[in-house]
Amino acid sequence: MTLGTPPVPTSIVGDWGTSHLRLFLCAGDAVIDRRRGPGLASIAATRQPFEQAFRETAGNWLSDHPCLGATLCGMVGANVGWTEVPYVECPVDPGRLAAAQVRLTAAGIRVAIVPGLACINHLSVPDVMRGEETQIVGALALDPKLALGRRIICLPGTHSKWALLNDGMIERFTTGLTGELFGALRQHSILLHGAATDGCDTDAFDAGVTRSIEAGAAQLPFLLFETRSRQLRGGMTASAAHDFLSGLLIGAEIVSAGASVCSDAPTSDSVVFVGEADIVDRYARAFAAIGRNATTIDGEAAALAGLNTIQRMTTCS
Amino acid sequence: MTLGTPPVPTSIVGDWGTSHLRLFLCAGDAVIDRRRGPGLASIAATRQPFEQAFRETAGNWLSDHPCLGATLCGMVGANVGWTEVPYVECPVDPGRLAAAQVRLTAAGIRVAIVPGLACINHLSVPDVMRGEETQIVGALALDPKLALGRRIICLPGTHSKWALLNDGMIERFTTGLTGELFGALRQHSILLHGAATDGCDTDAFDAGVTRSIEAGAAQLPFLLFETRSRQLRGGMTASAAHDFLSGLLIGAEIVSAGASVCSDAPTSDSVVFVGEADIVDRYARAFAAIGRNATTIDGEAAALAGLNTIQRMTTCS
Repeated sequence: MTLGTPPVPTSIVGDWGTSHLRLFLCAGDAVIDRRRGPGLASIAATRQPFEQAFRETAGNWLSDHPCLGATLCGMVGANVGWTEVPYVECPVDPGRLAAAQVRLTAAGIRVAIVPGLACINHLSVPDVMRGEETQIVGALALDPKLALGRRIICLPGTHSKWALLNDGMIERFTTGLTGELFGALRQHSILLHGAATDGCDTDAFDAGVTRSIEAGAAQLPFLLFETRSRQLRGGMTASAAHDFLSGLLIGAEIVSAGASVCSDAPTSDSVVFVGEADIVDRYARAFAAIGRNATTIDGEAAALAGLNTIQRMTTCS
Repeated sequence: MTLGTPPVPTSIVGDWGTSHLRLFLCAGDAVIDRRRGPGLASIAATRQPFEQAFRETAGNWLSDHPCLGATLCGMVGANVGWTEVPYVECPVDPGRLAAAQVRLTAAGIRVAIVPGLACINHLSVPDVMRGEETQIVGALALDPKLALGRRIICLPGTHSKWALLNDGMIERFTTGLTGELFGALRQHSILLHGAATDGCDTDAFDAGVTRSIEAGAAQLPFLLFETRSRQLRGGMTASAAHDFLSGLLIGAEIVSAGASVCSDAPTSDSVVFVGEADIVDRYARAFAAIGRNATTIDGEAAALAGLNTIQRMTTCS
């Protein structure tokens, strides 16, 4: 860091989800400081007022920079959040998303909350997201060629969101339950015992992906039990079984998406995966296994770029 | 019940699984008395000796009928059981299964434990069962035409077992994880909240089955989230969502099995589902939705018929 005039903060932005409040003090897109507070689950359990939790997390930022309001995305805008922010129907572009923010002032704190999105997905049923829309806006800011033509962007996590972009508009999206499935099976099934090793056992992961590709995603109800039978009869270690199951599940989602969601953008040269390094690397690896190109964008960088893009689109009030 | 000579007990048989020990005192195939004791999970937790738990459950049966040994099936023969009974490799017929029982005498109690089965399944990987093999023997005894030609028998439960019978031999089988998936998602996901109503909401169940048939089992990673989005945006009640999810999962398994396992027996006029009434009715209903015939056999009746068939095949020692 060079000495000199300290950067002047231009925004307080944050993602307030079920597990955490992540707050950032920014100068442009650069993060000056970051703080973490309680998620919505904790707020619901303790019945702490939202404004109190926000004030305790932001601390001296509010008194040091009294002109800065905050821009927040995530479940904070759900019906169990600070205030309910109605879903915006797709197709939508970043400008309309920014215009649909809901503002509130509580105990002297000025907050704008980014709405979630609703659509009819590729299976012709309603689908929703809250938080990922902001990461999509950020990905468009970080990689402007994403705004050209029809593109697929995937945001893996507890729920994976596969969105179709059309000339920079979010046309529609579909939710995959893979992350939550993995978590539920890891903790509450006979498939896995003991701890996984740190990192990814790529041999075991690739074996799982290969099984889903070979057998087809439709065989997933039967493929899952292989995680156990290979430990009982195939010499697989309990530790490798974690990544084998991860490969089976992510592989099935990739095969399924490759044959459905991705056909919405047949001319797109690659899919962009946005999220935490470990998980996007797994998705990109499985995507390569079906012969498709993938690029990745860090999830926090996308969230920050999206929040700051939306914050800058907002007319000062 | 007619007065007269009380029936003479001919066997003590039982299913000793993870959750329960279920013991039956029988005269031929008729149950004279039944008792319930601790499952293997409880035995492991309390470190109670198996012979003590068995003696406390059987009680006066042992002193009143000292000539009767017991025939047991289930996880009691696993490596965490009373004694480990090696898997028998398929193909196998009831006679070879009976001959492979492992006998033990502990504290004066004589017990024979039915082995589990191992095979290479329709996806060309190892598969295993313990307990269901005895129900298959029972189904063959209760419905002798099952022993003619190639037949599919399915035993749904926590794990569903789809077995191919060939002239009364168990050729191979495949395990579906649907029951465990439903349990894990019911208790540990955002899909369901609150209690299900008693019984089956058949409209909601059928809607789930229809979605898996229409979209295809390969879309399951995306279909599951519909359970939530239909509650948020489609007016589905929290109670109906339980049976919708059940329909999605059972529907996906049925579609998947119909296109794979069942093609092993293309001339079979129907599949036999063996298990508890609520669950086999759901499977038969979903099977009818793909245009296939199904019959059902009560799971306890099949277990009893299997245990008594195996017990009668056993030379007295």
